[in-house]
Amino acid sequence: MKKEKDEKLHTSRHSLAHILAKAIMELYPTTKLTIGPAIDDGFYYDLDLDEMLTPDKFDAIEKKMKEIIAKGEPFTKKIVSKSEALKLFKDNPYKTEIINDIPENEDISIYYTGDDFFDLCSGPHVESSKNLQNYAFKIYAVNGAYWRGNEKNKMLQRVYAYAFPDKKQLSEYISMLEEARKRDHNKLGRELELFTTVDYIGQGLPILLPKGAKIIQIMQRFVEDEEERRGWKLTKTPFMAKSDLYKISGHWDHYKDGMFVLGDEKKDKEVYALRPMTCPFQYQAYLNKARSYKDLPLRYDETSTLFRNEASGEMHGLIRVRQFTISEGHLMCTPEQLEEEFKGCLELAIFMLKAVGLYEDASYRFSQWDKNNKEKYIGTEEQWNEAQSTMQKILDHLQIPYEIAVGEAAFYGPKLDIQIKNVFGKEDTLITIQIDQMLAEKFGMEYTDKDGQKKNPYIIHRTSIGCYERTLAYLIEKYAGAFPLWLAPVQVKVLSLTDRNNEYAQKIYSELKDKGIRAELDDRNEKIGYKIREASSMKIPYLIIVGDEEEKNNQISIRGRGFENKTGINLSDFVERLENEIKTRKIN
Amino acid sequence: MKKEKDEKLHTSRHSLAHILAKAIMELYPTTKLTIGPAIDDGFYYDLDLDEMLTPDKFDAIEKKMKEIIAKGEPFTKKIVSKSEALKLFKDNPYKTEIINDIPENEDISIYYTGDDFFDLCSGPHVESSKNLQNYAFKIYAVNGAYWRGNEKNKMLQRVYAYAFPDKKQLSEYISMLEEARKRDHNKLGRELELFTTVDYIGQGLPILLPKGAKIIQIMQRFVEDEEERRGWKLTKTPFMAKSDLYKISGHWDHYKDGMFVLGDEKKDKEVYALRPMTCPFQYQAYLNKARSYKDLPLRYDETSTLFRNEASGEMHGLIRVRQFTISEGHLMCTPEQLEEEFKGCLELAIFMLKAVGLYEDASYRFSQWDKNNKEKYIGTEEQWNEAQSTMQKILDHLQIPYEIAVGEAAFYGPKLDIQIKNVFGKEDTLITIQIDQMLAEKFGMEYTDKDGQKKNPYIIHRTSIGCYERTLAYLIEKYAGAFPLWLAPVQVKVLSLTDRNNEYAQKIYSELKDKGIRAELDDRNEKIGYKIREASSMKIPYLIIVGDEEEKNNQISIRGRGFENKTGINLSDFVERLENEIKTRKIN
Repeated sequence: MKKEKDEKLHTSRHSLAHILAKAIMELYPTTKLTIGPAIDDGFYYDLDLDEMLTPDKFDAIEKKMKEIIAKGEPFTKKIVSKSEALKLFKDNPYKTEIINDIPENEDISIYYTGDDFFDLCSGPHVESSKNLQNYAFKIYAVNGAYWRGNEKNKMLQRVYAYAFPDKKQLSEYISMLEEARKRDHNKLGRELELFTTVDYIGQGLPILLPKGAKIIQIMQRFVEDEEERRGWKLTKTPFMAKSDLYKISGHWDHYKDGMFVLGDEKKDKEVYALRPMTCPFQYQAYLNKARSYKDLPLRYDETSTLFRNEASGEMHGLIRVRQFTISEGHLMCTPEQLEEEFKGCLELAIFMLKAVGLYEDASYRFSQWDKNNKEKYIGTEEQWNEAQSTMQKILDHLQIPYEIAVGEAAFYGPKLDIQIKNVFGKEDTLITIQIDQMLAEKFGMEYTDKDGQKKNPYIIHRTSIGCYERTLAYLIEKYAGAFPLWLAPVQVKVLSLTDRNNEYAQKIYSELKDKGIRAELDDRNEKIGYKIREASSMKIPYLIIVGDEEEKNNQISIRGRGFENKTGINLSDFVERLENEIKTRKIN
Repeated sequence: MKKEKDEKLHTSRHSLAHILAKAIMELYPTTKLTIGPAIDDGFYYDLDLDEMLTPDKFDAIEKKMKEIIAKGEPFTKKIVSKSEALKLFKDNPYKTEIINDIPENEDISIYYTGDDFFDLCSGPHVESSKNLQNYAFKIYAVNGAYWRGNEKNKMLQRVYAYAFPDKKQLSEYISMLEEARKRDHNKLGRELELFTTVDYIGQGLPILLPKGAKIIQIMQRFVEDEEERRGWKLTKTPFMAKSDLYKISGHWDHYKDGMFVLGDEKKDKEVYALRPMTCPFQYQAYLNKARSYKDLPLRYDETSTLFRNEASGEMHGLIRVRQFTISEGHLMCTPEQLEEEFKGCLELAIFMLKAVGLYEDASYRFSQWDKNNKEKYIGTEEQWNEAQSTMQKILDHLQIPYEIAVGEAAFYGPKLDIQIKNVFGKEDTLITIQIDQMLAEKFGMEYTDKDGQKKNPYIIHRTSIGCYERTLAYLIEKYAGAFPLWLAPVQVKVLSLTDRNNEYAQKIYSELKDKGIRAELDDRNEKIGYKIREASSMKIPYLIIVGDEEEKNNQISIRGRGFENKTGINLSDFVERLENEIKTRKIN
């Protein structure tokens, strides 16, 4: 039922794209149409025209579309031969290119909207534009987009529109977006001075300002300490290696496009590459000594920086970047230990998600290989079947509710991904736990078993909190910047009511600092209302306000983010409360 | 006086190199000689011969040299024309290449040793080999060395020998070397499982194993916390940037050879490079907002990873590497604040040196520009004179005893370097504090001064503990691996005397862990002597030994690195002692 509804919506949106195209041709007859698909919240159309479609022109286009809809024009399909199609679109090089790509004997369909407009399209469409009468749509943006996504091609104008079955749904959607935009880490994170980006440094290379760096420092230490408690040993391995290493690991054959390569294999004696993963580096710690079954499981973790050569269009704030830091770990164990250790990794990840407050937003994905694309992976079908069935048994045994995603496995093994959605509904992987029974052999990692035989250990690849930049992004959006106290870069700000109270404010501030509370002091000669508004806009958890009254009684007034105002508080009581809130890592 | 003595020693060593060459020609007549200079502890000679000069051949060569010395052969100089020289050395392509490089009208000198051996050489030499009769020398190694240091040329055999005025001095030197070798971090650091290197990863890219990574983690947190206390704000900035950034900073013109570049300027739209310094990245935190004199000084620090494209031959253990992590900071201030802030940076560095116990081994170097090589620097002579005289005034005022090093400045400003020597006497810079009045202008970094004018701040570039890898190397050598308790990766190891005591040993071990002590447990079924020797060889500060007696009395026996043995100790007393030793950062 849901699916039918989705299909109807999709068809309607796509039909609206044709109506947009017809409207554009009437308003700008020299336009060359290219393609115009339906998307998740409406549709877009890529157009080649000289005149820039600036926002002031959106109204006229929408008006023209509404006229076409009001006319109740039929959508009619016509099958033509390739030569007929080429004739019909002879003035349009884009459509010509598409037609030329269609195999000789395949039907080519044309859709008419009314008598005077047709477009190359495989359909389906609504019967008549009348069916779209209740639809609400809104053109909201025009961006540049290369023809066929290739930057060597011409830059076209992509007109985006939202489209929903009625006005109410459209306005709800726009409200939701507005709320999401307020939380958008890429905007809010800059306003809160957590990070910035700079053109001449480059895309996907955010600069973490002191407040953002502080949150990551807090998380990093928390993660390193918790992992140490759970028996993980920290390594610190290099961020680059010769191509020789990646040739052993398989990255050179299966991941090179995603890597930053230094040097040119044709010219240079040694070619290096920045690492996209920690695995083959951390294995060296295992390989440093001969290992026995008594040494296993061996758990190595690292606060690891990785580099991925993402395409320019892919980058987004702190979520998709070219360099990131991640708590990455590799665990070597015997087959008998595998399930227990996998469970330990999962428990660690859940512990972390709960600690930062993201647990409720997570879902599980079992990422498998795609046997129709064997060249993307190392290993045989037999090995994959074994690894996947081992993993499935464990997941089922641990009663983890997962979705299956074919083709999302790592090139060396299946993954359990912990997925999370950002405020715009876009899903990404935050945490991943993988089972790998192939790389140990490639690197000659062995242990002597009870029976005296040399065997390859299983390797679990895992993160625990995901990459810190991405986790920070989700936290910004989750809390709209109002972080739990234990993560807040500034926990308390001390405001003096008047200049007379500056010395007392300074004393309070120093005492907080001595207690290890992250405090700031505002003793500027400004109105208290102004000072409060400024501190509140930075989402600081607690404000301490001190005036003559507080000074006289050697007390403080506090103002919490939850609109909590209290006077006549003793500083020591308040510090105790803060310490307790920090220690228990209270989530707002 | 000292200088004359040095010159005499140098001349004698160089003459011994000729005697080595003569001995070689007698033993291996087809050898082609190249060059053979005196060095700090003897001499070497680069030879082209097919037969490998393995250590079993050293005795025969030394014997032949002694025969030549015993003969008392005169060293005689002869001046020849270029064409005569070319004729004399027509069978030796190396000497021919050297002769061809000599300007046409310059005298070319040949030195004879006896009648039957001559070598191309500018001298001077001893009068007769008889003068070398008391000399003690020892061939100790043969390494590969490319002709003229260029890896495109043929690989020659470089024969190294120590040479001293008498046997006593030689044997003292060799003893000193043996002691140094025991402390050599590049050997000991591997034995203690602090780090390793792997051929297929690459040179200068050490892998820090858990024990080494732990020491760096301890230092890193200590430094970050101390710097925070002193008003530094942590940033976390990217490790790479577009060439655009380095063009502004001057790195592209003045430092490109030392950088890893990603991409090719001739082909690629965007060229990136890994950062060799943090400066232009951290400036972005300053540039994120408009700044007033009231905001200054602004102190930014970062636990920063840097990359330098060192030549293959330059790499050494943890001291000279291609990737390293450093506490790097930049401080923006007004001219009036400069001296006080410089002093603060110096005090911070001294605090760190004292904390890790390297303070006594440090000396100061005032690194200035070289006005005969202006192209190596940005800025005018006037700017350099001003920056250097500002720095000199501060250094003199702070009464810092420094040596001057011309040509050792950064390309953007003068430096105070804190120098340190490794066990072999090789000096390197550990810490540097620099004054820069040029880069703020290049990056448009400004502040509004009291008078309403926009001004460029002074920038102090500084490290506090130097780069962690190098500092770790010096600590390994300083302590011969027996680190102070607060830095020791494993602080205590609990050994069970017999299997009967394993449970009690486990209990002691768990209690130590709960108290935050870095402990290990050895409950293997091995003799206690064996367990103690193994733990001692890992230089673990304290061993706890528990047998029936200890278990009965609920006590422990301890064994310290200083041969301290005590029985009948209560665990809680011992933990208190440990905690105190850690808290005070007691240096052995």
